[in-house]
Amino acid sequence: MTVRVGVIGTGAIGREHISRVENVISGGRITAVTDVNEQSAQSAVRDFNLNAAIYPDDQALVADGNIDAVFITSWGPAHESSVLLAVEAGKYVFCEKPLATTAEGCLRIIEAEKKHGRRLVQVGFMRRYDEGYAQLKETLDQNEIGNVLMVRAAHRNAAVDESYKTNMAVTETLIHEIDALHWLIHDDYHSVKVDFPRKTKHAHAELQDPQVFTLKTKQGVLINVEVFVNCRYGYDIQCEVIGEEGIARLPEVPSVIVRKQSKASTNILNDWKLRFMDAYNKELQNFFDAIEAYGQPQGPSAWDGYIAAVTADACLKAQETGEEQDVLLGEKPEFYEQKLHV
Amino acid sequence: MTVRVGVIGTGAIGREHISRVENVISGGRITAVTDVNEQSAQSAVRDFNLNAAIYPDDQALVADGNIDAVFITSWGPAHESSVLLAVEAGKYVFCEKPLATTAEGCLRIIEAEKKHGRRLVQVGFMRRYDEGYAQLKETLDQNEIGNVLMVRAAHRNAAVDESYKTNMAVTETLIHEIDALHWLIHDDYHSVKVDFPRKTKHAHAELQDPQVFTLKTKQGVLINVEVFVNCRYGYDIQCEVIGEEGIARLPEVPSVIVRKQSKASTNILNDWKLRFMDAYNKELQNFFDAIEAYGQPQGPSAWDGYIAAVTADACLKAQETGEEQDVLLGEKPEFYEQKLHV
Amino acid sequence: MTVRVGVIGTGAIGREHISRVENVISGGRITAVTDVNEQSAQSAVRDFNLNAAIYPDDQALVADGNIDAVFITSWGPAHESSVLLAVEAGKYVFCEKPLATTAEGCLRIIEAEKKHGRRLVQVGFMRRYDEGYAQLKETLDQNEIGNVLMVRAAHRNAAVDESYKTNMAVTETLIHEIDALHWLIHDDYHSVKVDFPRKTKHAHAELQDPQVFTLKTKQGVLINVEVFVNCRYGYDIQCEVIGEEGIARLPEVPSVIVRKQSKASTNILNDWKLRFMDAYNKELQNFFDAIEAYGQPQGPSAWDGYIAAVTADACLKAQETGEEQDVLLGEKPEFYEQKLHV
Amino acid sequence: MTVRVGVIGTGAIGREHISRVENVISGGRITAVTDVNEQSAQSAVRDFNLNAAIYPDDQALVADGNIDAVFITSWGPAHESSVLLAVEAGKYVFCEKPLATTAEGCLRIIEAEKKHGRRLVQVGFMRRYDEGYAQLKETLDQNEIGNVLMVRAAHRNAAVDESYKTNMAVTETLIHEIDALHWLIHDDYHSVKVDFPRKTKHAHAELQDPQVFTLKTKQGVLINVEVFVNCRYGYDIQCEVIGEEGIARLPEVPSVIVRKQSKASTNILNDWKLRFMDAYNKELQNFFDAIEAYGQPQGPSAWDGYIAAVTADACLKAQETGEEQDVLLGEKPEFYEQKLHV
Repeated sequence: MTVRVGVIGTGAIGREHISRVENVISGGRITAVTDVNEQSAQSAVRDFNLNAAIYPDDQALVADGNIDAVFITSWGPAHESSVLLAVEAGKYVFCEKPLATTAEGCLRIIEAEKKHGRRLVQVGFMRRYDEGYAQLKETLDQNEIGNVLMVRAAHRNAAVDESYKTNMAVTETLIHEIDALHWLIHDDYHSVKVDFPRKTKHAHAELQDPQVFTLKTKQGVLINVEVFVNCRYGYDIQCEVIGEEGIARLPEVPSVIVRKQSKASTNILNDWKLRFMDAYNKELQNFFDAIEAYGQPQGPSAWDGYIAAVTADACLKAQETGEEQDVLLGEKPEFYEQKLHV
Repeated sequence: MTVRVGVIGTGAIGREHISRVENVISGGRITAVTDVNEQSAQSAVRDFNLNAAIYPDDQALVADGNIDAVFITSWGPAHESSVLLAVEAGKYVFCEKPLATTAEGCLRIIEAEKKHGRRLVQVGFMRRYDEGYAQLKETLDQNEIGNVLMVRAAHRNAAVDESYKTNMAVTETLIHEIDALHWLIHDDYHSVKVDFPRKTKHAHAELQDPQVFTLKTKQGVLINVEVFVNCRYGYDIQCEVIGEEGIARLPEVPSVIVRKQSKASTNILNDWKLRFMDAYNKELQNFFDAIEAYGQPQGPSAWDGYIAAVTADACLKAQETGEEQDVLLGEKPEFYEQKLHV
Repeated sequence: MTVRVGVIGTGAIGREHISRVENVISGGRITAVTDVNEQSAQSAVRDFNLNAAIYPDDQALVADGNIDAVFITSWGPAHESSVLLAVEAGKYVFCEKPLATTAEGCLRIIEAEKKHGRRLVQVGFMRRYDEGYAQLKETLDQNEIGNVLMVRAAHRNAAVDESYKTNMAVTETLIHEIDALHWLIHDDYHSVKVDFPRKTKHAHAELQDPQVFTLKTKQGVLINVEVFVNCRYGYDIQCEVIGEEGIARLPEVPSVIVRKQSKASTNILNDWKLRFMDAYNKELQNFFDAIEAYGQPQGPSAWDGYIAAVTADACLKAQETGEEQDVLLGEKPEFYEQKLHV
Repeated sequence: MTVRVGVIGTGAIGREHISRVENVISGGRITAVTDVNEQSAQSAVRDFNLNAAIYPDDQALVADGNIDAVFITSWGPAHESSVLLAVEAGKYVFCEKPLATTAEGCLRIIEAEKKHGRRLVQVGFMRRYDEGYAQLKETLDQNEIGNVLMVRAAHRNAAVDESYKTNMAVTETLIHEIDALHWLIHDDYHSVKVDFPRKTKHAHAELQDPQVFTLKTKQGVLINVEVFVNCRYGYDIQCEVIGEEGIARLPEVPSVIVRKQSKASTNILNDWKLRFMDAYNKELQNFFDAIEAYGQPQGPSAWDGYIAAVTADACLKAQETGEEQDVLLGEKPEFYEQKLHV
């Protein structure tokens, strides 16, 4: 079976996913596209040589009987309504973060999905598909280091542009740790606070950089995440989990080791896209494979999207108030507890 | 365009390539299969849900107008005749090692391909597609470490079974280094000798293990390759290149770092298939991509297959005689000098 | 010149320093000892074959015209009075931590030393003499990574005994980071708070373990120190400094790398004494060398002892109250600003 | 007890050992010096503030009843006669390499020492006192990796001056591996050959650089040592031992890890003296300690000096002839089999 995909949003990330489906992975095909900018949709069809219908909007695209799944790669504020349209039409949905810009929006999607009676939605949190995170999770799941007590993580970018403001450390950056860490340790967030260290001279006026977030979980795990988006030296994702019996740490990105001029050195990536390239490929491959094997996606769910939204809101409030904030999550519906193996 | 592939040989490696094309990579489709064991061919079609014709032999399969390319994954002695059939029929060929069991056989294929006037054949030396080797090659090609003076490599397997004899250290194991290293350093082999260190107690009577091969190139580069196939601790491929200005080394396979019980440790693979999984995927993806982009493959050529055959013969003779042996290569035909970018 | 040393306190650490002076380093000689337990003093003289007077108490020992310097290795509460006696007598003092159990006590010592008109006192903060810390400091001092923004450190012991309570995480453990980190980054502490993560099951009832201390400096540097004294896996000291242009990290303790049974592993020390063995040797060697070269010690001063006391007090209060506490340091006296090179 | 030392040869290395004894280690004192250049001897006394007699030659110095041991740090050709004088006078001897410039010379020393009836002589092979080699040896001695099958070593210097010729790769450089490796694996050399790889452009006309030595032991262990003395990038000593059950490797020199400008890097030493600084200190400390504890030195013996001489001769002949050469060692005298623990 080949999953027929309609793409809503043919900007940068939409085009990358199109290229992935057409040129890199197996099991899917792009059969429809739409974009608020019609020329962008046309370019995508032409550039990737697609045999795909071009629709004026998401509503028209979703109505196409010739698609099984929808990729939502438009801008964030448009996600919720597209997801709801697709779910109502019974289409599978792969939606880039955020699932919705508000926790309420996520709940509306959850309700729609529950009404449909089967999971349809996967959120684009690709870290879970990274080989390093997968190894780290396996180490924890096999109880190699005992109960988790602390997590120390860092998310560093070489630089960001002027449009990146203090709050985006949460919505664009920390959001990936928010999803990956609760998944990694099977725990829920309880509270969050933020510290602002001395600011780097490389950050512009409206950006506090770096920032350090301290999250506590319901089990009492203390999670410390440094977000530093003008670290200059490269794109670097670090994660160390401290357990009762030992410690486990994310592997470094493999690099040739060069000895030269009194230094032994390895390369650090600059481009974040390269860091998770394989993970992007695997998340979409897994999306297709799970649809074929189980008739529903197995990746990050609408509930994970909701967790991310609620936690990000608490982080933003912590940034504004300087105070510790509770992360007030509802009860996880039974609906999202089922586990299928992929 | 989708490359339609006929598979000759549906044993273990044939099935893996079928799975790759159908379930993992893009741009190809299996449309025909054959095997000396017809039931094996039928199983492959059934297990992978192929929409593919089953042929009684390679001749019949090659004659199918419905295929663009042939995968040759039968046993070694059968390769040459299948390749020649396919080349004569103007089909693209992806042939697992060895291209032919003799240097003469390789030359016959080269002649046939030259007669056809365009490259058709790619040999399955997957190391070139490994991310680590690619980085190492880029380091050398960018002249990061100056002229190459020496190479130190090791090829270690945890264990081999009883059928693996002393000569197979060349034909099954060193053969990968033979291809990868001349490609890596843009040089040709001039001579080879072998040393037999103290034998491990874990090797059976008919296997000398470990063995150390010393190859000299036309430029004078000294290459030292340890082949140790009962090293017990895992599958481990090492390669260090010593240049006039510095040294470059293959990265380790990335692994979670665990601190536990007074040790900091990383995992070493045991299964060789996992080590080059990505490389296998990339070599076939590249085979399809190059056919689409240039109408000819860009990977290891029939000439590379010939180099491997001649060098392996010299290595076998060095094993038998205990003496240094010359590697007598003919002149590289102009035909194989052309370079296309993929 | 040979520095003649009187030792006050011949318990475990006193004996180690005696052995160091007599058997490992140069420039000193033990000429007098005392201990509250006279038999302990006699054993030391006998076991190390000392040509040394045995005194009934510190007062008598300090009065000996035959000693140039005093090592104070008694229990903490006795330090202050011994230091004051020695300073009044114009003897050089090497005092193990704490210099005094209260900030006021440290100030009294400072006053006495100022009155004497020249530095006499060195406090036993040996980390500064560790090769790794020295390299890290040089990296920072040469401005390799720009202005410091954050520090992430960890102090882990395999296990502690029942006598170790929650507050000792400050007085016995964190105290080393308190001294080393302000020295490392040339900054003063401004405030401190503490978080208590999920408690390990390996800690007894009266010990919260692990603990995470967050210190802010006057320059705004955010310092995060994990103290985890039942980490099980070994004795492990980590320190990473995040700067505006890059990041620098303490080296690991060197260890043979073994590949065996599917793991590549290095050893982690269990015994903290081995970790800083060289540093202990160097701090005493440096104490003697500086006395010879400059007529005064160059290592951690009474002022550093005062900083440690004030900061430790704030940390203890943070433990008790759960609130952020200010670190209220007086102005650093001119007297301690002078720098001599060793 | 303090060992009273007479120093024969107050050049660079003599002065370093004097400084070590006087300023760094314990248990010895310089009480006499001599040098062919009398001014050099006078400078040493003055610069290090020695309370030492100055003698016109080694004969006069050895006759001094006020010395227990002799350091021989003159130029190589003078070693043998000084050692013989000292042994005849019953003095302990610490002799820098070579013990004698010929195997016969070493045998003469061995005979003299046997006649004396107790070990007196230690040769200055400091590698055995390096912490990394000590760890490696312990790993092997505890049978962590089973029987040794191969050793791969490299000895790289950043650069050498014009006076360094091809043969000095043996006498100045490989000589350290010759001693360290047979000690490490408890085995004797059987034969040696040498390969000359492509020559680096950074070597002058009379120096073949790099060179690769292949030594076989009586147990069949194959040892491969690269000597590369213009490697440009630094001073780098590598050693990997391949056993039946696993592999062990010398640790790297610890260095701060810096992440900066898209690289993670550690520093590589340039100065060989820094690499083995601690080992130099420990070898002399151990010389003094063993004299005190056992009345005889425990370090590399005259027999080890003889092994080095015989093996170096075979290596030089291998360089000249291009052929494999036997290493013809006599039987090890019972006299050198005794083991005392230090």
